[in-house]
Amino acid sequence: MAKEKKFVEAITSRDEDFAQWYTDVVSKAELCDYTGVKGCMVYLPNGYAIWEKMQADLDKRFKETGVENVYLPMLIPENLLQKEKDHIEGFAPEVAWVTHGGNEPLQERMCIRPTSETLFCDHWSKTVQSYRDLPKIWNQWCSVLRWEKTTRPFLRSREFLWQEGHTIHATYEEAEERTILMQKIYKDFIEESLAIPLVAGKKTDSEKFAGAEDTYTVEALMHDGKALQAATSHFFGSGFADAFDIKYLDKNNELHSVYETSWGLTTRMIGALIMVHGDDSGLILPPRIAPVQTRVIPIAQHKEGVLEKATELMNALKVAGYAVNMDDSDKSPGWKFSEQEMQGIPTRIEIGPKDIENNQVVVVRRDTREKIVVSLDEIVTKLGEILENIQKDMFAKAKAFLDSHIDTAVTMDEMIEKFQENRGFIKAMWCGDEACEDEIKAQTGGASSRCIPPEQEHLSDVCICCGKPAKHMVYWGKSY
Amino acid sequence: MAKEKKFVEAITSRDEDFAQWYTDVVSKAELCDYTGVKGCMVYLPNGYAIWEKMQADLDKRFKETGVENVYLPMLIPENLLQKEKDHIEGFAPEVAWVTHGGNEPLQERMCIRPTSETLFCDHWSKTVQSYRDLPKIWNQWCSVLRWEKTTRPFLRSREFLWQEGHTIHATYEEAEERTILMQKIYKDFIEESLAIPLVAGKKTDSEKFAGAEDTYTVEALMHDGKALQAATSHFFGSGFADAFDIKYLDKNNELHSVYETSWGLTTRMIGALIMVHGDDSGLILPPRIAPVQTRVIPIAQHKEGVLEKATELMNALKVAGYAVNMDDSDKSPGWKFSEQEMQGIPTRIEIGPKDIENNQVVVVRRDTREKIVVSLDEIVTKLGEILENIQKDMFAKAKAFLDSHIDTAVTMDEMIEKFQENRGFIKAMWCGDEACEDEIKAQTGGASSRCIPPEQEHLSDVCICCGKPAKHMVYWGKSY
Repeated sequence: MAKEKKFVEAITSRDEDFAQWYTDVVSKAELCDYTGVKGCMVYLPNGYAIWEKMQADLDKRFKETGVENVYLPMLIPENLLQKEKDHIEGFAPEVAWVTHGGNEPLQERMCIRPTSETLFCDHWSKTVQSYRDLPKIWNQWCSVLRWEKTTRPFLRSREFLWQEGHTIHATYEEAEERTILMQKIYKDFIEESLAIPLVAGKKTDSEKFAGAEDTYTVEALMHDGKALQAATSHFFGSGFADAFDIKYLDKNNELHSVYETSWGLTTRMIGALIMVHGDDSGLILPPRIAPVQTRVIPIAQHKEGVLEKATELMNALKVAGYAVNMDDSDKSPGWKFSEQEMQGIPTRIEIGPKDIENNQVVVVRRDTREKIVVSLDEIVTKLGEILENIQKDMFAKAKAFLDSHIDTAVTMDEMIEKFQENRGFIKAMWCGDEACEDEIKAQTGGASSRCIPPEQEHLSDVCICCGKPAKHMVYWGKSY
Repeated sequence: MAKEKKFVEAITSRDEDFAQWYTDVVSKAELCDYTGVKGCMVYLPNGYAIWEKMQADLDKRFKETGVENVYLPMLIPENLLQKEKDHIEGFAPEVAWVTHGGNEPLQERMCIRPTSETLFCDHWSKTVQSYRDLPKIWNQWCSVLRWEKTTRPFLRSREFLWQEGHTIHATYEEAEERTILMQKIYKDFIEESLAIPLVAGKKTDSEKFAGAEDTYTVEALMHDGKALQAATSHFFGSGFADAFDIKYLDKNNELHSVYETSWGLTTRMIGALIMVHGDDSGLILPPRIAPVQTRVIPIAQHKEGVLEKATELMNALKVAGYAVNMDDSDKSPGWKFSEQEMQGIPTRIEIGPKDIENNQVVVVRRDTREKIVVSLDEIVTKLGEILENIQKDMFAKAKAFLDSHIDTAVTMDEMIEKFQENRGFIKAMWCGDEACEDEIKAQTGGASSRCIPPEQEHLSDVCICCGKPAKHMVYWGKSY
């Protein structure tokens, strides 16, 4: 069988060739597949199920803060895209253009949305009139398209899935508060559910979203020491509102601009899960985001009573609310273990004739490979504890890795040297000048400013690059 | 206030001008709004929330039968679309073409998916090898684009939201079974959750999906007597598989074609909900699909204790699992009632000082306007019963309407006369010839064959149109 052949070959070692290891995991865990169109992927059942879990979790968190879901069109007429100057400059080079509908050329070409600020603004400019119409706290789950030159599964593709939230508010303060709230929701979601620890802060001007006044970011660290921008929340002030003329009458019948935000998280977080938690046996999923939390694997299933007992166990776990399935195919147990491990299912439960005799099962943790013998009478409650422990331990492990890969530098030589060793984040002082960011990037072989954290430390008085007075302590890193 | 002004004007009467009434409800219940691009709508929170409820309900039914969700790209290269002859003929005139990516012209133009058979087939042709890879039972929730000339909110738009299921199987029988199963799932969902009764059957050849061997349909009847195709399930045999060369090796190492199905349901069902259940006060939503099942409306809310008690009630209902909200704005109670009615929320609960004194509330049913006095001690259980009754009664009412609008005809004159009165479905015999379908359409002012039901009746020996021997009894109707 072609499929069996695939598994016999082991995947590339993570420490040997991180990029190849990543591609191997994506392919052998059957998360996604390539298509004839560069940068447009097929999200396979195993990959899409992870996204569905992320959606459900995040959507609940959104709705608890008053977010309402909507859906806006995928097509943006060229004149709309051009209304906000910085925005069009940022996006025009990377949009796909629709020029024909049916057999007829369009009077005005339209792009497939790379992001939807302009569409939301256009709608609001026609519908918002009074303070009673505010705030609008809207979000949509959809796909967007950006004509990237180089692409990688989940991390950078032309079409990707995401959510984009867009809000308008009566005051500057309320909009700024929402921007910061959404950054916090992303941080909580990613740390609590994906077990990925983060550093958080504001982007520098050169790294901001096209058209934003401020961009708040959360940044994760991959196992190879590279940073990954995990989610961003943008504060627009009234820039878009003015470009689109979105005004409201307040209680005193005075006309004001609205203040706007937008915020998004994408399927690249599936890539982050792989690169933070995975190992040489494949993916490792945190239990809270795993579409399947445990797989029952019968041992010597041809023997009398084994399959019955295994099925009974699976059903009991299902009824108790666990996401569980069973592999009763005719493959060997070792083969089944490899598949379960490759797919990152957090636990497996082995049950064979001897276990049944002793009224027990063997639970194997995917993260530590620890084998835990559990009485069949206790498995329903015990499994919950084991999954909770895995979730906690996976976060602790990733947090320890992150903490041990945050360093400081006070001279350029120190910084250059440390980035040669691929050391993760480096904290260093910066004057606020974009020229120094460019210089640092050039000298370190690509390290960029990741964020300015709210917890500022005074590492030195001067910018690490130019020696002028320092304004901010910045996290620097090479990034995906 | 602009918004208040909107409500003061009553909507058009349903019996006076059905089309205008429909548009009024869509707009005043704030379900969707137009954009600058013809046929591309904004799904507003009230409208999108209905779609989310439909998604959750249907997705659960799908997954119980082994469906797995995936996501395939929105772009289809022209050569792929052209691989199946009937398919390209059916869709080429109504697709939108992408010709430029960024600033560069594409080597091959691509269309935005009007449906994704070709993409699924392309993927499977590269990945399916053995009987072990079968079946694939996949589905995606996404939007598609068809460059329609005339458009109407929810019923016919250029971009619309839907789910499209695609499956491949080792045998003809298994694929046919899946096609019929999906028709049943749609019927159950639409009748049980949307409270919309249906007639079901097969499409005639001329009404089949482009490329299908058989199309199974469920058809609903709108209040104006017009039919609406509610969902379809297509059996492709091995037509697509042969065009795309999707073959598998069976257990004896022999090469076979796979058999394929696809099936879909779209946001036009929101339009169906309006047109089957709505009245002159607006939308009426069946409780099982209503995003909000009850709205608490405090009466004389400025009086001491009223808001507290109303909030307490709302929280108790929330905890019990009801979808509930409260309108404690400074509008008048009458105003609040109108809004709740327009939005189709199945019940409201009025609670004022006198009610509190008597330890009671007044529940008002949206469908019948019946006022039911309920003790505060019993409201949590009683509300559930009331909602169940509404669901049951709404279906019964729609079923009675449908049954009273199914008639028979044995001569063309009879059929023509009955369709002049806009009588819903007419059952009549047909020879199987497409020319007769065209003739019937011409003579009745647009009635088409809706379906050939499995429960065949013998109304006469001959085709109603040509007088040749009859092959089938067919449901005929004018349709959306």
